[in-house]
Amino acid sequence: MTQIAPNISKYDFAVEPFSEDCLGCLSWPLLGNLILRAATLHATEHGFGYKQVINFNHAWVLSRLTIDMDEMPRTAEAYSITTWVDRLYRQFTDRHFAILRPDGTAYGYATTVWALIDITSRRPTMLDQLPDGGFNAALVPDLPCPVSAPARHRMKNPVKVSEHRANYTDLDINGHVNSIRFVELLLARYSKADMEAHPVKRIEMTYAYEGYCGELLSVYEEHVDSLTTLYEVKKEDGTTAVKGVIIRR
Amino acid sequence: MTQIAPNISKYDFAVEPFSEDCLGCLSWPLLGNLILRAATLHATEHGFGYKQVINFNHAWVLSRLTIDMDEMPRTAEAYSITTWVDRLYRQFTDRHFAILRPDGTAYGYATTVWALIDITSRRPTMLDQLPDGGFNAALVPDLPCPVSAPARHRMKNPVKVSEHRANYTDLDINGHVNSIRFVELLLARYSKADMEAHPVKRIEMTYAYEGYCGELLSVYEEHVDSLTTLYEVKKEDGTTAVKGVIIRR
Repeated sequence: MTQIAPNISKYDFAVEPFSEDCLGCLSWPLLGNLILRAATLHATEHGFGYKQVINFNHAWVLSRLTIDMDEMPRTAEAYSITTWVDRLYRQFTDRHFAILRPDGTAYGYATTVWALIDITSRRPTMLDQLPDGGFNAALVPDLPCPVSAPARHRMKNPVKVSEHRANYTDLDINGHVNSIRFVELLLARYSKADMEAHPVKRIEMTYAYEGYCGELLSVYEEHVDSLTTLYEVKKEDGTTAVKGVIIRR
Repeated sequence: MTQIAPNISKYDFAVEPFSEDCLGCLSWPLLGNLILRAATLHATEHGFGYKQVINFNHAWVLSRLTIDMDEMPRTAEAYSITTWVDRLYRQFTDRHFAILRPDGTAYGYATTVWALIDITSRRPTMLDQLPDGGFNAALVPDLPCPVSAPARHRMKNPVKVSEHRANYTDLDINGHVNSIRFVELLLARYSKADMEAHPVKRIEMTYAYEGYCGELLSVYEEHVDSLTTLYEVKKEDGTTAVKGVIIRR
C-alpha cells in the first residue's frame, strides 16, 4: 500500500500466471475480487474495516458495483488499484477505484455503494448522522469517480437461461454467496468466441438480497442490443437477489 | 520470491480479505491457483517456464495434483509456498510444494506431476533424454515431498450427480478448462454444513483430457466412506477428462 494523497491508497498488483482469462487478460472475477480487497484494506487503514465495525455489531454490505474498463491488463503487466471514499449520504457511502498503469494512465475505473447495517436488526445506519462527524475525516470530498452512472434499463421480456444451486464454493466468510460469484454467474453466459469478438467493457451489479448455501438461483436474461445484456438472479421464492448489466465493446 | 536453498524458491502470501471460504480459511481453489502460480514462477526463474518452452513449440501439461493440508491458514495469517523439482523420469517430472507458516512449520504439502508436450503433435518429450542434461541442473534430487501416494481407489458404482457446460469463466489462457476449475466442480458437491462438520484435508486430481468451451462436463461420484469420495468428470462422448478424490477430516 502507498498513500498517494490524504485518504487515497494505492495497492500494486501484476497479472500473475493463472490469473488470466482465455483472452490473455486479467480475469474479470479476479479484478472484482481485488477491488473488494482494496476496499477492505483501505477501510481498515482508516478505522472502519469489517473487523473494526463488527465490534459495534455492524457490517458493511455492498449495494452496487460498477466496473468500467477501456482495456484490461495482460499477462505480467503491472497495475494498481487506487481507492477513496468521496461522500456519505443517508445510509450510503460511495467508494471509488481507479485501475491504473504504472505510468498513471487508466485501464478503467470502478465505483461502489455500501451500506453499514446493524447485524442483529439488519437495519442500515444513517451514515451522515454519526456522532463526532463519523467517517467524515476519511473522505476525499472533491474527487468523484469518472464512471458514468448506470443507464436505466428495465427488463420487459426476461428469459430464464440457467439455474445454479449455491454450494460451498460460492460462499464468502459470512456464509453468503459472494458478490463476485454473482458476477461469474452472469459471465458464464458467454463463450470464448463471444468474448473474442466483443470483450466485456462494463459490468453493473445491484445487490438486493443475500444468497445462502443450498438456495437455487435462477438467472434471467434479456438482450438490449448485441452488446448490452440485462440480467436478474432470482431466488426460489421469486425474490430478486441481484440485477446486473454486462456491456461488451 | 526468496531462494531459500539452491533450486528451492519461496513465495510469500497472506490470507487477504475476500480470499477465504465460509470457514474463514484460505479457499481451496485459491490455494490450488497459487500452487500453480508458484510452479510457473519457479520454472521461469530456471529457464523452463511456459514462455520459455513455447519458443521450442512445447507446453507444460499438468498430469496430477495432490494437496494435503493438516490445517488451512486463516484470515490475515501469513503463509508461504516453497517449491522445487526432485526428478525427471521418462516423460514426467515431479514438482513439490510445502505450504509453511512464518515459523517454518507446515500447514501442509502438495505434489504435482507434469509432462512437456510438443504443441503440434501433442506428444510428450522424454525429459530424461534431453540434450546437455536438460533440466537436471534445476533439480533438488534428495528432497522428495512428504505427501503420501494416492490410495488406489476404483469406482464401482459411480452415480452422475451434476452437469456443467464449460464457458468463458472456466477457461485458462490456453482456452482449456482450467485445472483448478475442475477442483471447484468437485467441491461444489459440498454444503457449508458438510464442510463445517468435516473440512477438506486432501484433494487428489488426475488430469486425463483437456476440457473445451461449450463442452458438457458430467460429474460422477462414489462415496468410499463418510469422509472419502471419488469423482470422475466425463465429456459428452464418455471420455474421462479428470478423476478426483476428496478426503475430509
